[in-house]
Amino acid sequence: MNGAESLVRTLVGGGVNVCFANPGTSEMHFVAALDRVEGMRCVLGLFEGVVTGAADGYARMTGNPAATLLHLGPGMANGLANIHNANKASTPMVNIVGDHATYHRRYDAPLTTDIETAAKPFSRWVKTSPDARSVAADGAAAIAAARTPPGQIATLILPADTAWNEGSGPVEVPAAVPPAQVSPEAVAEVARVLRSGEPCLLLVTGKALRQEGLELAGRIAAKTGARLIAQGSNARTQRGRGRVFVERVPYVVDLAVKVLAGLKHIILVGSKMPVAFFAYPDKPSLLAPPDAVGHVLARPDEDLIGALEALADELGARSTPAPVTNDPPPAPGAGAVTSEALGQSLGALLPENAIVVDEAVTTGRGFFAPTRSAAPHDWLSNMGGSIGMGMPVATGAAVACPDRKVICLEGDGSGMYTLQSLWTQAREGLDVTTLLFSNRSYAILKGELANVGAGNPGRKALDMLDLGHPDLDWVGLARSMGVPGARVTTMEAFNDRFAEGIATPGPFLVEVVV
Amino acid sequence: MNGAESLVRTLVGGGVNVCFANPGTSEMHFVAALDRVEGMRCVLGLFEGVVTGAADGYARMTGNPAATLLHLGPGMANGLANIHNANKASTPMVNIVGDHATYHRRYDAPLTTDIETAAKPFSRWVKTSPDARSVAADGAAAIAAARTPPGQIATLILPADTAWNEGSGPVEVPAAVPPAQVSPEAVAEVARVLRSGEPCLLLVTGKALRQEGLELAGRIAAKTGARLIAQGSNARTQRGRGRVFVERVPYVVDLAVKVLAGLKHIILVGSKMPVAFFAYPDKPSLLAPPDAVGHVLARPDEDLIGALEALADELGARSTPAPVTNDPPPAPGAGAVTSEALGQSLGALLPENAIVVDEAVTTGRGFFAPTRSAAPHDWLSNMGGSIGMGMPVATGAAVACPDRKVICLEGDGSGMYTLQSLWTQAREGLDVTTLLFSNRSYAILKGELANVGAGNPGRKALDMLDLGHPDLDWVGLARSMGVPGARVTTMEAFNDRFAEGIATPGPFLVEVVV
Repeated sequence: MNGAESLVRTLVGGGVNVCFANPGTSEMHFVAALDRVEGMRCVLGLFEGVVTGAADGYARMTGNPAATLLHLGPGMANGLANIHNANKASTPMVNIVGDHATYHRRYDAPLTTDIETAAKPFSRWVKTSPDARSVAADGAAAIAAARTPPGQIATLILPADTAWNEGSGPVEVPAAVPPAQVSPEAVAEVARVLRSGEPCLLLVTGKALRQEGLELAGRIAAKTGARLIAQGSNARTQRGRGRVFVERVPYVVDLAVKVLAGLKHIILVGSKMPVAFFAYPDKPSLLAPPDAVGHVLARPDEDLIGALEALADELGARSTPAPVTNDPPPAPGAGAVTSEALGQSLGALLPENAIVVDEAVTTGRGFFAPTRSAAPHDWLSNMGGSIGMGMPVATGAAVACPDRKVICLEGDGSGMYTLQSLWTQAREGLDVTTLLFSNRSYAILKGELANVGAGNPGRKALDMLDLGHPDLDWVGLARSMGVPGARVTTMEAFNDRFAEGIATPGPFLVEVVV
Repeated sequence: MNGAESLVRTLVGGGVNVCFANPGTSEMHFVAALDRVEGMRCVLGLFEGVVTGAADGYARMTGNPAATLLHLGPGMANGLANIHNANKASTPMVNIVGDHATYHRRYDAPLTTDIETAAKPFSRWVKTSPDARSVAADGAAAIAAARTPPGQIATLILPADTAWNEGSGPVEVPAAVPPAQVSPEAVAEVARVLRSGEPCLLLVTGKALRQEGLELAGRIAAKTGARLIAQGSNARTQRGRGRVFVERVPYVVDLAVKVLAGLKHIILVGSKMPVAFFAYPDKPSLLAPPDAVGHVLARPDEDLIGALEALADELGARSTPAPVTNDPPPAPGAGAVTSEALGQSLGALLPENAIVVDEAVTTGRGFFAPTRSAAPHDWLSNMGGSIGMGMPVATGAAVACPDRKVICLEGDGSGMYTLQSLWTQAREGLDVTTLLFSNRSYAILKGELANVGAGNPGRKALDMLDLGHPDLDWVGLARSMGVPGARVTTMEAFNDRFAEGIATPGPFLVEVVV
């Protein structure tokens, strides 16, 4: 059994059952091994940003890493932006990057690069396998690294001869290490702060945003009078009717400062002190009041649910009613297309148990509030800030959860980064409805140009923020990749077409002219 | 004058007059400065791979670097594959990568990455500007680095506060350093080898493939009986009627070994000893006979034309007739679409002074020979092997040479990597005719699967090489980005539509179903 097959069998044995791939010559033995090993689903993406973003979406929904298969340094480079987003989301991921045969690297053939160095800024674990007999053990170590709490990027570089030479056979993957428990002292200290009567915030993220965590946090907040807010972006938030609603720290610095004003204590539940997404002249980097004190209840790699349970017990909050949302959903929006009307329609029409992938950027900033009483759903956000994550993450989430509807909220500027995702959705018959908000600009940057104090923009500057001239035809783009769709310019048409997308099995795209 | 404007004025003063850009918040001051500075054309790409590939194409045709404007680490990462290709082509390029303000980096905001480390494997010169007063001088140093022979990638990282704080004003860029002359001893030694009567090869690349260099090399070959061959891939080759035709070292290892068989001496004119693109079990990495000796006439950074002149003088070959091509062009291909017929039509129909960007991969392997007697043209190849360079390089070449027709030979697999290029071509009205060869597979990999000895592929493996299911509609993709086009399935239709593309000002796409 060669190294490649030893590695594939190790992956499957270790519970890694999906590989998102865009292989080349140096990965052909891995590809060939797929035919000889049961239990590995291989999904082709026509660009590596699709591949790595899909692995992110898959792992956010399963909790288990997918593998990616990438072609040398440049193939990995094409996937780095979404690896970056996954890294910031603490997503477990095992990247397999083919390289030249060990003896061939010295000749500096065209595709030769220093893959390890390029991988390091985006991966917590990087290794080049030295020979075919080590590949399976290195693969097992990569899986273990990926599963290290709270989830990590592991990148294994596989020289071609380590794939084709005789390998070791599969290696057993060690059981995942559970997250560490927080100390009783940390719990007691946070309880003391919460009882102080001073203004406190529970700032939550990670697993604390699953239904169970939010219920615990909601009970604690209700018992102590503390506020409860989530980080600005989060990997996966469970929300909707019957769940505890949680606001997010706003993106806009002035709004965030206002929301956090007056706080004395910030209890960090897997989170860190709120930071502005960007620096701006004359605005603060840190968003909380300068005299607010941070208190770590649980670090990101610790057991957030266990920490909230212990804190609820310490405070006697277990039986305090959790403030779950039980309002009726809003009526669908009507008339002209606006961000507010779209938010209402989402709140009204989101299907039960939907997975919402949110890269709607400017158009979508107001969607969070009107969807608080929608049917229960999961909400996945961009945590790394690199655009082009929405459609790939939706693709991977749909592979992970074939019995759930995925709704992808996508801006036109972001969507163009990884539009090849639509082809994979068509090929795999993935149940993704993409709502493509076409404002024909990098609208967020128009505000940012003013925020950074760059003055009155002229034509040349505005041209850099403009996606018109010519306008993109998103229905045509989707159809050309095998995805049906429709364009809407009123809320009535939106409501009809969104419903059609939900009712249609497989991918569908609604281009919403904003 | 702030740092950003100081930098833009330095670039313009230093002869960098085009900036390919996909900016974000951290680059807004640079964008705003464009309105205040005359002489900088800014071209938007909807994905960074378009931006960096266009800068490559622009510099290949002008000899002068373009700037790129990229958004932090992930934005740069999206452009790295085409920076890699440019690096291997010795293309001069100045990348400006925005970063968080210096004081903001410590907070690890979402887009924070180690940009320097990620840039290093792909750049010869990397610097983070420390403050606003240094930015212009750093920009001047970046231009000088980019112009260092034979051309280099320079990456300047620009923290946001170095853009908005008070700068130094523009800094003068030092004159470009000319390439070094080769030593008389090197010339004399090569002349001795060429006179030895043993089988010799002049292996040429770089500037030696311009008309002047090829004429010199052709005279030397004719005088001495040496063979004349170009590297497998080259940044820019001048060819067609009235020029000296030069073959390339074939991609396929067995063919390359056959072509180079029997050689005793390889004269390296900016080139290096031929290396296989990939390693394969039981095939050599080095393609020349094991006993062939390499002799360096000129290193890549030396004056290749001067070296050939000196060698021609030493050999008394200046008046030897250069073997220029004067055959009539072939008749256009007819009947079924085949690689051979397409090559004939290209040979017959290429317009005078065309710029041909070649990323046709499998379909295009046979195009080189039948175009030897086409109208004079420039031929640009992929030197780094990372697919997705064709359409971006064509975009940049068209910006560089608005009075020349650009013909982009593109495979469907490669084209999907950076299809956003078509939008930039439409917006800028660039005169690019794209011939999109749609074989609905990564056809090259079907051969590679066999070459690496990976055995009989099964369904799962073949699915990873297949671009059908669903078929891509390239005419629809182009139209949706503002580029007209047509699909052809016969050579007669191809000839008509190719002629239409040539006759149409602005971009046009012909989808050729192979």
